[in-house]
Amino acid sequence: MRDIQPLVAPRSIAVIGASANANKSGGILFSNLAKGGFQGKLFPINPNASEIMGIKAYPSVGDVPETVDLVYIVLPSQHMETAIQQCVEAGARAACIITAGFSEAGPEGRAVEAKIRDVARSSGMLLAGPNTIGMVNVECGMMGSFVNFPRWEKGGISLFTQTGIFTGAVMRQIMDSEIQRLPASKSIDVGNKIDVDELDFLAYAAADPGTKVIGLYIESINNLPAFAEKARTLRGRKPIVLLKPGRTAAGKLASANHTGSPPADTAAVDDALRNTGILRTEDEEDFVNTLRALAMLPKPKGRRVGIATTSGALGVIASDYVTDYGLELAAYDPNTLERMRTILPSWLTPANPYDFWIGIDVKGAREAHEVGLTAVFADPNVDLVLCALLAPPNADFPEMGNLLRTLRRTYDKPVVLVLYGSAAARWTQEVEGADIPVFPTVRAGARALAMVANAAL
Amino acid sequence: MRDIQPLVAPRSIAVIGASANANKSGGILFSNLAKGGFQGKLFPINPNASEIMGIKAYPSVGDVPETVDLVYIVLPSQHMETAIQQCVEAGARAACIITAGFSEAGPEGRAVEAKIRDVARSSGMLLAGPNTIGMVNVECGMMGSFVNFPRWEKGGISLFTQTGIFTGAVMRQIMDSEIQRLPASKSIDVGNKIDVDELDFLAYAAADPGTKVIGLYIESINNLPAFAEKARTLRGRKPIVLLKPGRTAAGKLASANHTGSPPADTAAVDDALRNTGILRTEDEEDFVNTLRALAMLPKPKGRRVGIATTSGALGVIASDYVTDYGLELAAYDPNTLERMRTILPSWLTPANPYDFWIGIDVKGAREAHEVGLTAVFADPNVDLVLCALLAPPNADFPEMGNLLRTLRRTYDKPVVLVLYGSAAARWTQEVEGADIPVFPTVRAGARALAMVANAAL
Repeated sequence: MRDIQPLVAPRSIAVIGASANANKSGGILFSNLAKGGFQGKLFPINPNASEIMGIKAYPSVGDVPETVDLVYIVLPSQHMETAIQQCVEAGARAACIITAGFSEAGPEGRAVEAKIRDVARSSGMLLAGPNTIGMVNVECGMMGSFVNFPRWEKGGISLFTQTGIFTGAVMRQIMDSEIQRLPASKSIDVGNKIDVDELDFLAYAAADPGTKVIGLYIESINNLPAFAEKARTLRGRKPIVLLKPGRTAAGKLASANHTGSPPADTAAVDDALRNTGILRTEDEEDFVNTLRALAMLPKPKGRRVGIATTSGALGVIASDYVTDYGLELAAYDPNTLERMRTILPSWLTPANPYDFWIGIDVKGAREAHEVGLTAVFADPNVDLVLCALLAPPNADFPEMGNLLRTLRRTYDKPVVLVLYGSAAARWTQEVEGADIPVFPTVRAGARALAMVANAAL
Repeated sequence: MRDIQPLVAPRSIAVIGASANANKSGGILFSNLAKGGFQGKLFPINPNASEIMGIKAYPSVGDVPETVDLVYIVLPSQHMETAIQQCVEAGARAACIITAGFSEAGPEGRAVEAKIRDVARSSGMLLAGPNTIGMVNVECGMMGSFVNFPRWEKGGISLFTQTGIFTGAVMRQIMDSEIQRLPASKSIDVGNKIDVDELDFLAYAAADPGTKVIGLYIESINNLPAFAEKARTLRGRKPIVLLKPGRTAAGKLASANHTGSPPADTAAVDDALRNTGILRTEDEEDFVNTLRALAMLPKPKGRRVGIATTSGALGVIASDYVTDYGLELAAYDPNTLERMRTILPSWLTPANPYDFWIGIDVKGAREAHEVGLTAVFADPNVDLVLCALLAPPNADFPEMGNLLRTLRRTYDKPVVLVLYGSAAARWTQEVEGADIPVFPTVRAGARALAMVANAAL
């Protein structure tokens, strides 16, 4: 574990391979950095240019008049050893190699990679990559990637990933969406991970005040006992969400082809990570949903779920998943049940799940939702709220968004929404910014609540 | 097992409770039937109206000048016994009770329900409901529900459900969407299921030429051995997709509250349904995804999956799920590997998953996708194709939709698409009508392929 601050939050950046060509990775990366509002100094390195985008260029890193914290390298792989050597000689504190074609490409690439690693290690220079899309740090305005994230929202999630395009495309689609975006602080993709690893990142994120939730996509774990021990110290304070595919033989083989990682022993990983508090996720959807829930929701006081629904079937499905994921159905308080009864016909006895669909016929959409949802949120026996609501025209009313915002604020309990029907998009839009995560299925909603409850342990 | 044709595909329909009031369930249901293009005769029943929507009304079912096949009843529950008695006396062949408030409402409702059942059974009149949103049959133009499905698409899926609002809202959201709609033939919701049951429906659907795929949402199974036996006779011919929640104790209790069903023994159900060929699904998303895949895709020749991807990470995740769901990764043919190599740099060896992201840099988006996807589709060792593709601007090209349509048509192998990135929506739109299902995650895509393979067994 070393201080990786010069890599993650540099005060100055040089880009070897910077150019004015918007069709080349080096040109795009430099442009993203220049336009991204980086708060430190920026130095394009190019022997054939005196300036790029109006910024003075230098022939080599050694020519820059000050020692730089971080050097991005976007060059063909055959020039990499020389470039790294120059960075070391110039005293650079960190380098990020964007270029692909190393250990994932076979024995030759692996040999070059080993040499680069040796050079860096003996000098103490931090290394990220090769084979990465780069690094983003919203706090210092570093958009250090050839993928641009124009709508990146500042927030408490810090990502560490061992893959390029997944981070680029999957994360971008989610973070760039108009609604339900993930508020992110930092995204560090280390590609083939030849030097800086998940343990370094955990140590950094543990001490970083901007990081509230840690997200890791990694295909291997370098030092399993140390990683598990470090994770344990963060338990209950900063949740760690882990996506580590390669559980099966086929997955392990695909992983080795992808990043050059040696196949990991799944059972050994499972054993080591047990009782660390790490939240294991199953796939890209689960990973992102868990991060979103943790970023938006407070810690619950317990594991008792109140289900509020306008679909009996979704209530049944939700009950199964609440059980599957290790939560309990709350026993509603007698006062709550009394309140619930007021919007139902006399023949219907409220229970958990509380299905108040018929209350819409009895009292109208607004009163049914006001009474029904408030009853569940207010119940002292309810620690977490799952709302599986139907939004056809006759269940819709103009103040639905306000109602949900008020309930979220007033009771400050973790809540998830699952919405079906024509008004679902509008309701989702109306809770934007209110820290209410919306999920596509009751399974995903129940899962997210379980993750929030597990993170509080 | 009886012939339920008068219920599912009636030649004449009466509606007790029909009115011109568009705010009442009876008014909405009648209006939907009248506007829905029902091909048989329609008779509104209302003692206070001479006509409704220009159609001659009758004071009671007994006054209709002919014997009707089916009577919808939309009346408060206290009038139900009388109404059912009238239907029987008029010789109606079937009745569908829309009204709620019977066995799911407690002992009194259960007693009324039992009486109604006895009256119907002793007369031989078929009964659906109570507590249902009704029934749709696209073939005879019956829109017999208080929920309207204006964009319902004619096709091979027939649904039998034991829930109202779930069918109404969940199905509507999916079937009404502009893209990736479920092509449906019939939707029979029996609510509390006091008479016509899943076994009757299986017998009907087995013989019905319009039904290619059977979808069942049921919370209980009345005659488990007979149901399992009937399912076995359909194996390999007409897939049966089953969603039966209530797996857990909490789910069973919720189910009992929802439809008045007695808690089912999960282990007994699991045992009985093993080796029947029934495709068990986990939740509403899995149910709908499986139906869509079966409606759109041909039978595969085997269980070997070719993964074509532009994300190493998604390839690893997909490999895990292909294994989890009991499929195999295909070993690509030497000729295929030769083809795959042509768009990769020399240092990269193709494998399965075939990740050709870098081919976009090497050859451009169009050639990379043409060569890469064609190689996987054409391989004789590939029975099923999973495409997990990134769609950022640099991977996009105008002919992508055409390419996918051509590959689907030329090779006629089951294929699923999982798309991430800014062009994903356009690509999805471009394959509309080409029988290519699109799924939100690689998990869902792998699952759908497994279901298609399992259905072929």
